[in-house]
Amino acid sequence: MDSLDAIFKPKSVAIVGASRDPKAIGHQCLQNLIKSGYQGKIYPVNPKADEVAGLKCYHSIMEVPDEVDIALIVVPAKYVPAVTEECGKKGVKGLVIIASGFSEVGREDLEREVVEIARKYGMRILGPNVVGIMNNPLKMNASFAPYLPYPGKAALISQSGALLIAMDARTWIDKVGISHMISIGNMADLNFGDLIEYFNGDEDTKVISLYIEGVKDGRKFLNSAKNSKKPIVALKAGVSKRGAAAAASHTGSLAGSTKIYEAAFKQGHIVQAENLNALFDETMALALQPPMRGDNLLIITNGGGVGVLATDAAEKYGVPIKDAPDDLKLLMFRHMPEFGNPKNPVDLTGMADREQYEGSIRDALKHEWVHGLVVLYCETSFTDPQNIAEGIYKAYKDSGVNKPIAVSFVGGERSVKAGQWLIEHGIPYYSSPHAAVRAMSALRIYGRYLEKASKEFVPYKVNKKKVEAILGKARACGKSVLTEPEAKEVFAAYGLPVPKGKLAKNEDDAVKIARSIGYPVVMKIVSPQIIHKSDAGGVKVNIKSDDEARKAFREIMENAERYDPHAEIMGVYVQEMAPWGTETIIGSVNDPQFGPTVMFGLGGIFVEILKDVTFRIAPFSKDEALDMVKEIRGYGILKGARGEKPRDIEAIADAVSRLSQLVWDFRNEIKEVDANPVIVYEKGLSVVDARIILKTEKVTKVTPKPLDKCG
Amino acid sequence: MDSLDAIFKPKSVAIVGASRDPKAIGHQCLQNLIKSGYQGKIYPVNPKADEVAGLKCYHSIMEVPDEVDIALIVVPAKYVPAVTEECGKKGVKGLVIIASGFSEVGREDLEREVVEIARKYGMRILGPNVVGIMNNPLKMNASFAPYLPYPGKAALISQSGALLIAMDARTWIDKVGISHMISIGNMADLNFGDLIEYFNGDEDTKVISLYIEGVKDGRKFLNSAKNSKKPIVALKAGVSKRGAAAAASHTGSLAGSTKIYEAAFKQGHIVQAENLNALFDETMALALQPPMRGDNLLIITNGGGVGVLATDAAEKYGVPIKDAPDDLKLLMFRHMPEFGNPKNPVDLTGMADREQYEGSIRDALKHEWVHGLVVLYCETSFTDPQNIAEGIYKAYKDSGVNKPIAVSFVGGERSVKAGQWLIEHGIPYYSSPHAAVRAMSALRIYGRYLEKASKEFVPYKVNKKKVEAILGKARACGKSVLTEPEAKEVFAAYGLPVPKGKLAKNEDDAVKIARSIGYPVVMKIVSPQIIHKSDAGGVKVNIKSDDEARKAFREIMENAERYDPHAEIMGVYVQEMAPWGTETIIGSVNDPQFGPTVMFGLGGIFVEILKDVTFRIAPFSKDEALDMVKEIRGYGILKGARGEKPRDIEAIADAVSRLSQLVWDFRNEIKEVDANPVIVYEKGLSVVDARIILKTEKVTKVTPKPLDKCG
Repeated sequence: MDSLDAIFKPKSVAIVGASRDPKAIGHQCLQNLIKSGYQGKIYPVNPKADEVAGLKCYHSIMEVPDEVDIALIVVPAKYVPAVTEECGKKGVKGLVIIASGFSEVGREDLEREVVEIARKYGMRILGPNVVGIMNNPLKMNASFAPYLPYPGKAALISQSGALLIAMDARTWIDKVGISHMISIGNMADLNFGDLIEYFNGDEDTKVISLYIEGVKDGRKFLNSAKNSKKPIVALKAGVSKRGAAAAASHTGSLAGSTKIYEAAFKQGHIVQAENLNALFDETMALALQPPMRGDNLLIITNGGGVGVLATDAAEKYGVPIKDAPDDLKLLMFRHMPEFGNPKNPVDLTGMADREQYEGSIRDALKHEWVHGLVVLYCETSFTDPQNIAEGIYKAYKDSGVNKPIAVSFVGGERSVKAGQWLIEHGIPYYSSPHAAVRAMSALRIYGRYLEKASKEFVPYKVNKKKVEAILGKARACGKSVLTEPEAKEVFAAYGLPVPKGKLAKNEDDAVKIARSIGYPVVMKIVSPQIIHKSDAGGVKVNIKSDDEARKAFREIMENAERYDPHAEIMGVYVQEMAPWGTETIIGSVNDPQFGPTVMFGLGGIFVEILKDVTFRIAPFSKDEALDMVKEIRGYGILKGARGEKPRDIEAIADAVSRLSQLVWDFRNEIKEVDANPVIVYEKGLSVVDARIILKTEKVTKVTPKPLDKCG
Repeated sequence: MDSLDAIFKPKSVAIVGASRDPKAIGHQCLQNLIKSGYQGKIYPVNPKADEVAGLKCYHSIMEVPDEVDIALIVVPAKYVPAVTEECGKKGVKGLVIIASGFSEVGREDLEREVVEIARKYGMRILGPNVVGIMNNPLKMNASFAPYLPYPGKAALISQSGALLIAMDARTWIDKVGISHMISIGNMADLNFGDLIEYFNGDEDTKVISLYIEGVKDGRKFLNSAKNSKKPIVALKAGVSKRGAAAAASHTGSLAGSTKIYEAAFKQGHIVQAENLNALFDETMALALQPPMRGDNLLIITNGGGVGVLATDAAEKYGVPIKDAPDDLKLLMFRHMPEFGNPKNPVDLTGMADREQYEGSIRDALKHEWVHGLVVLYCETSFTDPQNIAEGIYKAYKDSGVNKPIAVSFVGGERSVKAGQWLIEHGIPYYSSPHAAVRAMSALRIYGRYLEKASKEFVPYKVNKKKVEAILGKARACGKSVLTEPEAKEVFAAYGLPVPKGKLAKNEDDAVKIARSIGYPVVMKIVSPQIIHKSDAGGVKVNIKSDDEARKAFREIMENAERYDPHAEIMGVYVQEMAPWGTETIIGSVNDPQFGPTVMFGLGGIFVEILKDVTFRIAPFSKDEALDMVKEIRGYGILKGARGEKPRDIEAIADAVSRLSQLVWDFRNEIKEVDANPVIVYEKGLSVVDARIILKTEKVTKVTPKPLDKCG
């Protein structure tokens, strides 16, 4: 971590490319650093100048007499490798490469070159293509953004430079307090994961706030986030189809699937902000307030209308309002006129003044039922917003509890000023009820994360060796798709229930196997070339006798021959016929950023029409898998709809978690898994059809092998 | 309309209850009226004062020497009837009853009394329980809100008084321009429908903006809205389950189903705002900009990041970004450096200054492909937001087109100031990209309304007499539920396809009917008491022969006898067996505010688990019904999913529209209709089961009648 301290809390900063032209970015960086009040040493470097902005200028970084913690590199891209080399020789600890013209414009080669040079010298790199870094406690603005952000406790890391500068300015409007503001750029070296790890250990930071277009090293990101003791809130840009494409073209990074990012955020305990305002609003709440440790949200208001709006928002954002207990209602009733409403929302009525607010808030916070409090105030002609604000603050302080509060004042200039006073006193203020409730919901989401934080993945006992053997054999035979019997064996080895079945090479075989399983059976063609078995006439179901089995074998073989005369036929798989149940799908894709993931959904229209599926990054616990099952829209089906018995949700979670272990264990081998359908019963489930696709880059050469060895 | 002009543009205002106590609301109303600069005549009325706030005070309204257009009534509720009587005698044209203590606290009786007195004299009433009215063009603040709102072109009508006062103050922060601000209160007389009608004709108003908890006279509301030549935007509070309950308890009004309000908004061409910020943002856009007359939205930005965020928002709000045509890209490319991106979003890059913005905006607006333009700007250190704003305005003016534009500046104080300058110059400005896109989407929604405005309902030719006869007979027999054969006849009379079928009274009958229909048939018990026919063992399907028909008849009769020995048995309905198809549901409820409505959805899990249904207020055209079909989530099923042929969507729309005519024609008779399932085919559909429930208040007495007459 030492080298990162040197970068984010440097004792000395060199600006390589400190131009004398006031319009040049190099010059601006230098000026900003001086203006901001930075107390460390500043070394301008410019081969053509002896003095810039009143400071002695060095012709090369090598000439700087003292140690240099970081160098801001503001020279054209083509000179960056040489400058990096010099910095390395000088013993500079970190580089902040403001220069652009690297991977974002297709020059991955140049970027790699720079990283390799830096590695040689043990230097870390922020960038290239960054605005710079800002550290409020150090009063250090080492960037070309014109001034430091509003001071506070949030480390804000942005993948967009333009947005970072704009957000910097906006922090002063919204009074969102920032400890550090970091432009992360192309992430040639330091990425989101590194920065999360660093700011988790930074004493000036209480919340980590991210603007993300696409991460690099998804695993590192996920693990740093999961291990963070501080809340993290992220705005992911590119969550729409076209937005993802735009983000990809803009940063050159792989934007990845929205659903996989959502999974990573959940597993990394990251609160996802729905838009830029939400990022600001929730950053403020998480910086100023403790998490909400339960689902009981109380709303206190002086206006019924905003109370209703807040109630709507609470349902929308997942903390629906509940009835308050009677004793709390009685307490609330003391602070309102007779025509007030002590229910939740607590309506103090338009007559409410400071006394009513203060009294009701104090009593509410002290009541054990209340886990979080949203206070709403509509500006009136006979109350002073500042006075109300002071009442709220006093009640909050007096209560002495560790529960979150958020406030919305709807009104004019006086309300805005009072709101800012509240923020300065540690109470998040918003100008609309829904924003206050949304911010409280972020505190609740974070609270829920903390409640489940202990449920880690513990590997199952599985037969890994068997899977290694099956995959090894498939590789040796040059196959990139396992046959169905192989896939079933792999599943079985990891404890996923599959129907009984065996490969038949001839009619007699088929009959023998069918008898041993017991009729009725299903029979399916097995051939690496025939993926769509039904289309090929390669599937027969509900086979009830020896005769039918013989006939089915013949027909399947004939159909397959007709469908693809060149297909390599392994035989016919004879399988126990699974009884009717609820069709689900379990699958896996190996994401370029996050590696193996697992998907779950209900089959049929749910997946095809409604795209009602959910993801997690593998591996993960059965508890996490249970969350997946519960978050699909069709969960009601599994709970037992239309008079049906509930399905075995535990069995699903077990299977999903086991699959997550499989795809993680074989992350370098398995590209894709598709278990469809997985039929779920009142008790247990059965993986009726399964496909496993291997990573092709590992397949050296496809050489057909005789049936005996590779069947 | 004369009397409403007298209320909203009064030449003279009396304040009845003009207290000398500066804290009293009556005093404040008087002071506000004087302070605001109102040029009409002001008459304080107070029996105990000769002078208030420097004006001569009258002891009674009767003493006022001149005509009084409106009287603000600020006396305790119990005195309001007497004051109303006096005002009537005086010839006051309208009353603004600020006094509270009426239906909102359970005193409907007092409210009714006041309305009756007012009616007697032809006076209209705003309220009771209002803040008052504000008219910016007249500089009239006839309310206890402390000052007039920011001037502009929106009439803002609020059902919450506290929120109205708070919004009044907030208009000065957000610079949302208001022509009139009206507190509508309990709507004892004037309701939303009346005010929409009035402001549609008001020359100072360009957009009507509503905060609604629950409407009164839904039909009037719907028709006024539909006939409005001005855009309407509404924030409906109480869209969540608990929010609806809170709204109901707060206003005493029936909040009604969220889905039915959504239907009314669509049919009334009302843009629904998702929250308070959206109401403000969209009000501004609709007041300042023309509707967006097509789906092509172009985004111009100086930051890739905000471009991506805007793209995400565009998809979320229903105006997804599309590729711009090549010639437009070429035009855009002229206004950016080489590394800019001329695609949509058009990324001028962080280097963009006024010239690039001005040039690209001018060219974009003039290009015929562009239907709407969102301009994004991230504040930078080397550009001046004011200069950019002026460039945007100049380009917009120069282009001379009638296309909408919305702007987002993300930044600090300078950006906010420049944004306010833009607003003053008619260009809506927002502080975040998603708010700008959401506002543009409101302009698009309104544009779409205008495009379909002509598709009015034209009644079908139906056999209304037959339905009258069936309903009449049912009434005469004291029935509140039609039997299935009756319901089917009703449907058939309105042109909805029903399977062939007839009532059998004995086995021979059953066989005869089955033969005439052709096997297979379905047989079902017919009894007013047996609603859940399957539970009673009263349904047999797939009956293929005479013998089976006889057996089925016997069994059904026996089962029914066993199920409910006291049930009145009409016989067994023998019905053509509908072939397999896609199950849908068509239904109707008679809403207390909006009257008959029609619901459509897919059957099974779609309705039961996903609640995937949509509503409209009856009657409505087939085109409107087509919109219904297309807006359900399961629409993909009907378009032909999983290799199925597409279903007959036209037939569904036809049936839904016909049902809307039926429930409208018999709005005083029919309480509920449930056609479930309605099986839809590639060609046509069939209403397989149907239930019609009559309004019970019309049933005088339930006297069982002999089978022959009432069967």
